[in-house]
Amino acid sequence: MKRDTSHPLGVPDLSAAERGFRSGSRAFLSSRAFLTGVAERMFQALIRRAGSPPVEFVLGKDRILHRPRRSVGRVTILDTSTLWRILRHPELAFGDAYSAGRLMITGSLVDVLFHLYSCMERAGPRGAKRSWLGMQPRPRANSLDGSQHNIHHHYNLGNDFYRLWLDDQMVYTCAYYRSDDYTLEQAQVAKMDHVCRKLRLEPGMRVVEAGCGWGSLALYMAREYGVTVQAFNISTAQIAYARERLTREGLEDRVQFVCDDYRNIPALVRSPVDAFVSVGMLEHVGVDNYGSLGEVIARVLKPEGLALLHSVGRAQPQAPNAWLEQRIFPGSYPPSLREIMGILEPHRFSVLDIENLRLHYARTLLEWLQRFDSRIGEIRERYDESFVRAWRLYLAGCAAAFRASSIQLYQVLFSHPDNNSISLTREHQYNTTTGGATWAEF
Amino acid sequence: MKRDTSHPLGVPDLSAAERGFRSGSRAFLSSRAFLTGVAERMFQALIRRAGSPPVEFVLGKDRILHRPRRSVGRVTILDTSTLWRILRHPELAFGDAYSAGRLMITGSLVDVLFHLYSCMERAGPRGAKRSWLGMQPRPRANSLDGSQHNIHHHYNLGNDFYRLWLDDQMVYTCAYYRSDDYTLEQAQVAKMDHVCRKLRLEPGMRVVEAGCGWGSLALYMAREYGVTVQAFNISTAQIAYARERLTREGLEDRVQFVCDDYRNIPALVRSPVDAFVSVGMLEHVGVDNYGSLGEVIARVLKPEGLALLHSVGRAQPQAPNAWLEQRIFPGSYPPSLREIMGILEPHRFSVLDIENLRLHYARTLLEWLQRFDSRIGEIRERYDESFVRAWRLYLAGCAAAFRASSIQLYQVLFSHPDNNSISLTREHQYNTTTGGATWAEF
Repeated sequence: MKRDTSHPLGVPDLSAAERGFRSGSRAFLSSRAFLTGVAERMFQALIRRAGSPPVEFVLGKDRILHRPRRSVGRVTILDTSTLWRILRHPELAFGDAYSAGRLMITGSLVDVLFHLYSCMERAGPRGAKRSWLGMQPRPRANSLDGSQHNIHHHYNLGNDFYRLWLDDQMVYTCAYYRSDDYTLEQAQVAKMDHVCRKLRLEPGMRVVEAGCGWGSLALYMAREYGVTVQAFNISTAQIAYARERLTREGLEDRVQFVCDDYRNIPALVRSPVDAFVSVGMLEHVGVDNYGSLGEVIARVLKPEGLALLHSVGRAQPQAPNAWLEQRIFPGSYPPSLREIMGILEPHRFSVLDIENLRLHYARTLLEWLQRFDSRIGEIRERYDESFVRAWRLYLAGCAAAFRASSIQLYQVLFSHPDNNSISLTREHQYNTTTGGATWAEF
Repeated sequence: MKRDTSHPLGVPDLSAAERGFRSGSRAFLSSRAFLTGVAERMFQALIRRAGSPPVEFVLGKDRILHRPRRSVGRVTILDTSTLWRILRHPELAFGDAYSAGRLMITGSLVDVLFHLYSCMERAGPRGAKRSWLGMQPRPRANSLDGSQHNIHHHYNLGNDFYRLWLDDQMVYTCAYYRSDDYTLEQAQVAKMDHVCRKLRLEPGMRVVEAGCGWGSLALYMAREYGVTVQAFNISTAQIAYARERLTREGLEDRVQFVCDDYRNIPALVRSPVDAFVSVGMLEHVGVDNYGSLGEVIARVLKPEGLALLHSVGRAQPQAPNAWLEQRIFPGSYPPSLREIMGILEPHRFSVLDIENLRLHYARTLLEWLQRFDSRIGEIRERYDESFVRAWRLYLAGCAAAFRASSIQLYQVLFSHPDNNSISLTREHQYNTTTGGATWAEF
């Protein structure tokens, strides 16, 4: 077996070796060819366990590993060692190989990934998601130090980078397409407003925000709803940016951006607040710390306050996508609702309202990917090709995963159990003029 | 110690015995007086563990067991043997003693119970809810035969009895006071409509209803939304009544009332349906059978269908109120959301929407209690006084428990995971003219 140097990426031509392996001819029965044959068989078994997706898989130039009747695209694994790595750690090595250009995808990246996820989900937990020949990599811990490291890995990449493809307010969480014709900008504002309506914010109220990103929601709440906000984040880059905006907007008397961990909130908030909100932080908290998070909320929320957690989640508990957890969001874990209840039930928090915005996040991610692609020249000037490929895989993969329902987006609104000043219907989330009755006197 | 025959209910005057116990005078240190003293001390400890509610407790004529600074009412335990029974099984004996007239409550029954529950909930699981001197009674099983027995105990009491105090459509579940000025009748219609909107029913759709009561929702869905319904219930009395209404309304071509257990639904439904709905049955299913219920829904629901479970629940898992479980609803158990996820997560059902209507059920129960009281003369003609007292305690107690947040009312809407024809917002639940966009093509 020798390199096919005619191929620009040096794709080996395995067909001769494989033919030899099949025919049993001694001359070709080198241990290498034999092992390649074993790897191919194992990969085919893996594909079957993954529900035989409608995607063609090819090794090297033309070794067909899987040819479905109907196909939405093709995955080309450029060499046998990449194939072995995928057998060992399917998710991690798939992502790494794609980033490194050792695995190519033809057809729509989102569609191919959607069908892969969709089939894997239907095939169930015995499918190909989990490791086959090796161990699932161990997720990073979210201790105080661990979280610092994990968060900086992603969120300190450079505000300029995110500014290239996020909306003008830099909201890096699921938008809310309240109307189908909304732009990303409108949908991000609608999301912030939806959150504020759920929390029933009113002028003069005090709010704590845990994990405030670049500060958009904190500023929005202060500007549009007249509340006072203490907003926490451990990303120094994001906090620096948020503080600049704060000065520019002249809201210093109403918003305070604090560079600290959510676990330190009780020590930094002088008295219980009317609302606790966290949009897109829970994914980074880790199930081991749900007890601490529940404790923080129980301590800082007024008896008559409302709290909202907005997070990527799962329909059933599952290990996180290994590549995403190792390469993009270290320490991240999207919990199932049962796991989220581990934050709430110990404190007898009463769940008032849960909404799933799964398809909204799929659409948000598609918009980000489009904007990313429209600025790809500028991005390539700053980062190498493997970074660009990794980020496209991440954005497309998450859009596909939301569309395939591999992941969900939960907004969970809750209160202390004996809060009887809660609103009776959710009418106020949809109509500004009606709704909002409470039976506080009840 | 002798009976104080001057009291109409024969309330013993314990004060002399007690005085003797306190002073240590030999003459009174009979073993009986001594034991009464022990029981009183134990009861006082129980009251403290229950969070020292603002309710006065008196034994016999005037032995003060607990006198709070502020009091909303008084509980009089008529004799020492009742006191001992309460120490043994606090919840069960409290209810039994009240029913038997061995325990009197002065002040508003609902308010007194509200403050008892409220304090107990705040005092936490180490409070007085659980058994103190004995075992918690073992809840009844919900096997196929067990459920038959358990359901008939309550729902076969006589349709005429329920007609006296339910709304005109005989809806025996939480109403939805969409507007504050709704009557019970309007609120029950609003509840049925809210459920239909959540399920996005359209003419021609096929629906399965598990636990259909007297048939109101099935008839409403068929009449107002033009769907076809197979509705299941194991209460023979309720099914008989529902069938009468069906004939009267001439909807036989659209609704079928089936007297069978939810576990037999897959065998009786010819092909998957557009919607699965169950309002007020889950409380009677029992956690042990959640696997079966999930399996039933997974089998009968179309890939693009929607399912709704409406049930009394808890903010955190807790043994059911022993008296309610033993005397009113045998085998009943209100689950926490984490427990409800045990139905959904194994099938990867995607939770779309959870709403908590706790205070609506408190108001519904208050209305039932008022109507019960307004017909109490007729009820007394048919049933003995202990039945009347037990039912008033049940209705008032549940109203109080919802108000105190001891129990919740969850509506859980979900779908198969890969159903992308779900609506994007909940606007259609509130506005008939707007909302309802889907990205089915997505």
